[in-house]
Amino acid sequence: MIIVIQCKDQVGLVAYIAAILAKQQLNIVSMREHVDPAENLFFMRVQVEDNDHEDAKLEQLLKRLLPEGAMVAVNPNPAKKVVVLVTKEYHCLADILIRNFFKTLGATVQCVIGNHATLQDVCERFDMPFYHIPHEGVSKEEFEQQIDAAVAKYTPDYVVLAKYMRIVPPSFVSKYPMRIVNIHHSFLPAFIGANPYRKAFERGVKLIGATAHFVSNELDEGPIITQQIVPVNHSFTVTDMVKAGQEVETSVLAQALKLVFEDRVFVSKNKTVVFS
Amino acid sequence: MIIVIQCKDQVGLVAYIAAILAKQQLNIVSMREHVDPAENLFFMRVQVEDNDHEDAKLEQLLKRLLPEGAMVAVNPNPAKKVVVLVTKEYHCLADILIRNFFKTLGATVQCVIGNHATLQDVCERFDMPFYHIPHEGVSKEEFEQQIDAAVAKYTPDYVVLAKYMRIVPPSFVSKYPMRIVNIHHSFLPAFIGANPYRKAFERGVKLIGATAHFVSNELDEGPIITQQIVPVNHSFTVTDMVKAGQEVETSVLAQALKLVFEDRVFVSKNKTVVFS
Amino acid sequence: MIIVIQCKDQVGLVAYIAAILAKQQLNIVSMREHVDPAENLFFMRVQVEDNDHEDAKLEQLLKRLLPEGAMVAVNPNPAKKVVVLVTKEYHCLADILIRNFFKTLGATVQCVIGNHATLQDVCERFDMPFYHIPHEGVSKEEFEQQIDAAVAKYTPDYVVLAKYMRIVPPSFVSKYPMRIVNIHHSFLPAFIGANPYRKAFERGVKLIGATAHFVSNELDEGPIITQQIVPVNHSFTVTDMVKAGQEVETSVLAQALKLVFEDRVFVSKNKTVVFS
Amino acid sequence: MIIVIQCKDQVGLVAYIAAILAKQQLNIVSMREHVDPAENLFFMRVQVEDNDHEDAKLEQLLKRLLPEGAMVAVNPNPAKKVVVLVTKEYHCLADILIRNFFKTLGATVQCVIGNHATLQDVCERFDMPFYHIPHEGVSKEEFEQQIDAAVAKYTPDYVVLAKYMRIVPPSFVSKYPMRIVNIHHSFLPAFIGANPYRKAFERGVKLIGATAHFVSNELDEGPIITQQIVPVNHSFTVTDMVKAGQEVETSVLAQALKLVFEDRVFVSKNKTVVFS
Repeated sequence: MIIVIQCKDQVGLVAYIAAILAKQQLNIVSMREHVDPAENLFFMRVQVEDNDHEDAKLEQLLKRLLPEGAMVAVNPNPAKKVVVLVTKEYHCLADILIRNFFKTLGATVQCVIGNHATLQDVCERFDMPFYHIPHEGVSKEEFEQQIDAAVAKYTPDYVVLAKYMRIVPPSFVSKYPMRIVNIHHSFLPAFIGANPYRKAFERGVKLIGATAHFVSNELDEGPIITQQIVPVNHSFTVTDMVKAGQEVETSVLAQALKLVFEDRVFVSKNKTVVFS
Repeated sequence: MIIVIQCKDQVGLVAYIAAILAKQQLNIVSMREHVDPAENLFFMRVQVEDNDHEDAKLEQLLKRLLPEGAMVAVNPNPAKKVVVLVTKEYHCLADILIRNFFKTLGATVQCVIGNHATLQDVCERFDMPFYHIPHEGVSKEEFEQQIDAAVAKYTPDYVVLAKYMRIVPPSFVSKYPMRIVNIHHSFLPAFIGANPYRKAFERGVKLIGATAHFVSNELDEGPIITQQIVPVNHSFTVTDMVKAGQEVETSVLAQALKLVFEDRVFVSKNKTVVFS
Repeated sequence: MIIVIQCKDQVGLVAYIAAILAKQQLNIVSMREHVDPAENLFFMRVQVEDNDHEDAKLEQLLKRLLPEGAMVAVNPNPAKKVVVLVTKEYHCLADILIRNFFKTLGATVQCVIGNHATLQDVCERFDMPFYHIPHEGVSKEEFEQQIDAAVAKYTPDYVVLAKYMRIVPPSFVSKYPMRIVNIHHSFLPAFIGANPYRKAFERGVKLIGATAHFVSNELDEGPIITQQIVPVNHSFTVTDMVKAGQEVETSVLAQALKLVFEDRVFVSKNKTVVFS
Repeated sequence: MIIVIQCKDQVGLVAYIAAILAKQQLNIVSMREHVDPAENLFFMRVQVEDNDHEDAKLEQLLKRLLPEGAMVAVNPNPAKKVVVLVTKEYHCLADILIRNFFKTLGATVQCVIGNHATLQDVCERFDMPFYHIPHEGVSKEEFEQQIDAAVAKYTPDYVVLAKYMRIVPPSFVSKYPMRIVNIHHSFLPAFIGANPYRKAFERGVKLIGATAHFVSNELDEGPIITQQIVPVNHSFTVTDMVKAGQEVETSVLAQALKLVFEDRVFVSKNKTVVFS
């Protein structure tokens, strides 16, 4: 059983929480706790031995004693639903589809939405609903509204931008606060914006990276979940860098989704607390 | 203030501990807890905001409520003393001497003992006592007894084998249980024993590593603290591998000592719990 | 255009080769050369600017001047054919199927053969022929002969053991010398043989790895192509280690196949020369 | 024997060079070649078996046949001289002093110059001349001129900025073109300029890095030699990040100097070609 808690910090929080768990004869297997002093926020993830305890009742017990506004979840949403947005690149999507198909993703993909039809075939091979919503021939607003409506129909818990090469509007972001995961093809904050691999090539860097982050309304500025890098050298063309980058993008998005779906990621202002 | 606890596991431990801390108005900044189910052992490291609390009194309060045989330490030994044993290779020792000189080691080196005189000069440049105890011209037993006596005079908290190319006898190990840190020049358990780099070269591995571990009476079998690797390739001679290995040995020993001196490493049977 | 050469070493080889290329007005973009002094072997990979040159004619010109027994290939086999053997685990196979489907594997998968039917479904979704050859209910010899026959029908250039949990017999190995790529779920030579993750768990290692190697008749002793590692810690159960290991297995096999299919890997006795 | 060549690219260069070497009965052990098509530049590093050949004569033979303006060096400067500039931080300097003392640096440090006296003691312990040239109490121009004069007296081959926290003026840079190595405490181009660790902390990155580069007249924009990273997490304060960064700074500078002193680094416009 997993318990996650986020609230204002105060003396005695761990004692309150642990006392309640002990009273219920819940043995703590692993506990991670962090206080962000700048924000005065308390974060905790507890793993207790499974028993027949009723989740909702335990949540109530905990909430009663915690500071107002506390976020408490016992076994938070064990059946997470996900919508994936894509453009043309297959690598991140394919990795997600495979894990979803073999039930190792930790969440269920409900559908895939693309502004190109390129990835329809691979989706259909996994009986995955695919919606092609082209951004051409319509206004930006119309396009964004169509995407919004298509996603909303599924009421997903998370939206994954798996190399979705469009900016999502504030109205969309506000519907899924800290629940939109994006993969950015650079070691942020280096090479913000478009064509990061070309910029990396031109700068002659010796490592390229990728960043998985939650989407906020500041482009490429949302809380970073995880980052990875891969070495490159003078023999790499831009194309080689893109290819090397795709490997690390796939890997870093997979890792970020694992952390998020296992309820290991908390957001503290513009940063994450990750109990990995 | 750091509090470390190790004891038999039972329901309610975290509650007991946290309640005591709360009663003393000690605010928990960071808490790491782990239960080893196979050994039924409980491990905890808590960082609380510093206040004027008396360490010894808090230790007593905690001990009273914890299972018999519990190890409890509040600000465990802030002035750790270390004796370093060496042979001829300088890289690990020099790194330790530099950190000791600039007071960033987290412990104080009391002296260096070598079975060769090679490293006497560098020690003296840092006003570090160096004892040359040759293993030649004496019996193995006499040599080991001389080393034992030389170390014992300093009553160190930890003994660091910084590329000490001799096996320490059980009588010595038993005096410093889980307080002797060794650096082994391979990615254990690969290439146990002598000449690991030659063996690695002959096997054609693509990564070589180094392992920092506590010394037990089984050669190269003590609890592993940390491990690192470095890539190698077909162009590496054995000498190149040794050189690359020395870099990673220096780095992995430094990292292990940091973890140990910050009281982040616990031993559970033949493994470590590391709250890094 | 890629040119690969392997032969006995002698003074002047580079001069011969480069002179021939220059005479044909072939501009060298990148050249990698290595001499294994222990084996007196010369290895070279040259990339020249593409032109209309006839591959076979250039091969002849080169062969005429190189020591007897030289292996020379100009644009070696641009359409490599691969048969994949599997058991039950999906992760390595799925990664290969995806790359094959999107034509980024650098080779063409002809069929998949499994001793269990578990992975039949995912193959069929990609229109990939799958043959289920059970090892149960037949003698070991019969089973091995059936596998041999099934593979032979496709005359593949390479056989990939993508978590195929059976040992292939010498008769099979001799048919595809240094053309069978295996992924071993450990950082070889640590944890040779069965259950490496359980052994790694019991040893308390802090890094686990995976090794892609060519298959020889010594179990787990063939030339290593590439190795990768991933950090683990005390909180990992054996199952967690297996999961972490699967990620690195997928990654290391993909990297090895890329190197092999781009003709960057040479074998020198029991080691590889990799011009990565 | 090492031979390095840099010149305009043209067809047949490798053939010319290899023919000359073969005529002198020089056996090539390892050859690395790269052509930068954007700049039309040819780079080569050849390692041949040592013999009694006269370096200067071989240089002449090679130069005669290579395009005008070619840079050719046979055993380029085996006794490289280095001046180190520092401010207050000890970690990079200490690492250099240790390697210099044990003659494993690949170059000889002639003196250390600091704008603070902090590191005088450690230098003197290694009998290393230290000059304290304060930047306070004088004009920027006077200060820069004093530094310039102090360095010039030693006619060094390379100048190493080992955490020298001042910008060197164009007049200084032009005296040592692509021969000033700087360590920048960030994963460039992220966090250019001052206080990179504070910026990294505020951005909540999960990896921090360091970059060794040649100094050009664009601040932090010179050709990158090598980069390394280290993982960080939410529990790191700015101070923790600085400490973690210092480890990686030490390591990346050591690696860069090794590459440079082994004549493995070439500059192609604003990038490096590194035959590592």
